[in-house]
Amino acid sequence: MECGLLFSAGKDSSLSALLLEEFYDVTLVTAHFGITDDWKYAREAAESLGFDFVSVELDAETADAAAERIHEDGFPRAGIQQVHEAALEVVAAEYDVIADGTRRDDRVPTVSRAVAQSLEDRHGVDYVAPLSGFGRGAIDDLVESHLTVESGPSETIQKGDYETELRERIRSRWGQTAVEDAFPDHEQTRVTGRG
Amino acid sequence: MECGLLFSAGKDSSLSALLLEEFYDVTLVTAHFGITDDWKYAREAAESLGFDFVSVELDAETADAAAERIHEDGFPRAGIQQVHEAALEVVAAEYDVIADGTRRDDRVPTVSRAVAQSLEDRHGVDYVAPLSGFGRGAIDDLVESHLTVESGPSETIQKGDYETELRERIRSRWGQTAVEDAFPDHEQTRVTGRG
Repeated sequence: MECGLLFSAGKDSSLSALLLEEFYDVTLVTAHFGITDDWKYAREAAESLGFDFVSVELDAETADAAAERIHEDGFPRAGIQQVHEAALEVVAAEYDVIADGTRRDDRVPTVSRAVAQSLEDRHGVDYVAPLSGFGRGAIDDLVESHLTVESGPSETIQKGDYETELRERIRSRWGQTAVEDAFPDHEQTRVTGRG
Repeated sequence: MECGLLFSAGKDSSLSALLLEEFYDVTLVTAHFGITDDWKYAREAAESLGFDFVSVELDAETADAAAERIHEDGFPRAGIQQVHEAALEVVAAEYDVIADGTRRDDRVPTVSRAVAQSLEDRHGVDYVAPLSGFGRGAIDDLVESHLTVESGPSETIQKGDYETELRERIRSRWGQTAVEDAFPDHEQTRVTGRG
């Protein structure tokens, strides 16, 4: 069966791909807004892992709504969640099985059982989250043994997650200070291959 | 890493084993009470799937407490949950990683994030539930393509789950009617190999 897995080039979505590859015909799907070309880093990572890759562009309204929400909230959680759900809707229209890298201990994005069942019922797909039964320790061990990664602060590690473009959108509308106010400094990781 | 996966010979724990086999050195572990020899059906299923197998005997107090709970409740849910948690404790003392076949849509047994983290912290293990991000539809498809199964009413399909022995314990203490009162008729499935 054809599985579209939302992919950011990060550890969680990469490890999810490895968990599913024996069971589905997996395509890695990076959703973006056309604001930057950072989705190309995700394509590079997908190639290094040996998976098919497609990028899909979400509409500008989704980016604007999320940027406004993040700017108002002062933190990115709810805005990122909105974008993730919009991306799942797009992927659900194209594949038999849709998947993402959400983990047991994730705060965002999360996909509740109700959201999962709604996606499945409306689109006639199955939604699978292969890491949702794995905690941080188990995931760290599997990443260590199966992936090669590079890491650093958000500003320097370029990958294909929603954050980069939302930061850019917020910067263009409200300036660099607004970005720094809403996005805490945190370590980002990009996957560079198996190993 | 050594992973002990609680195994009943049913579809969910069998499919969990297949999902984990590329990532861990998996041993299938069937917990029983020494009331019947039905754990041998689980050993047979484990062999047919090509996994190492061990059985572990839980103490009689666990069986009695669960049987009493089920008899009082008039349904098996809470008693089965008690046994499952006791079995996880035993396995957590022996392996680096412990696992089970709980699904997204399971009503019982379930392992909450709090219970999972408590197991991990107290035993220094990782707990993984590879099917917890899979719904019924996805699991049915994967079982169809990766396992061979036989199915029938609970009374005729012998496997290594807690239910068979708890039914026997309840029968010996309160009679056959008590068993029929507490356990609804339902279809059981036993895995007989890959395919």
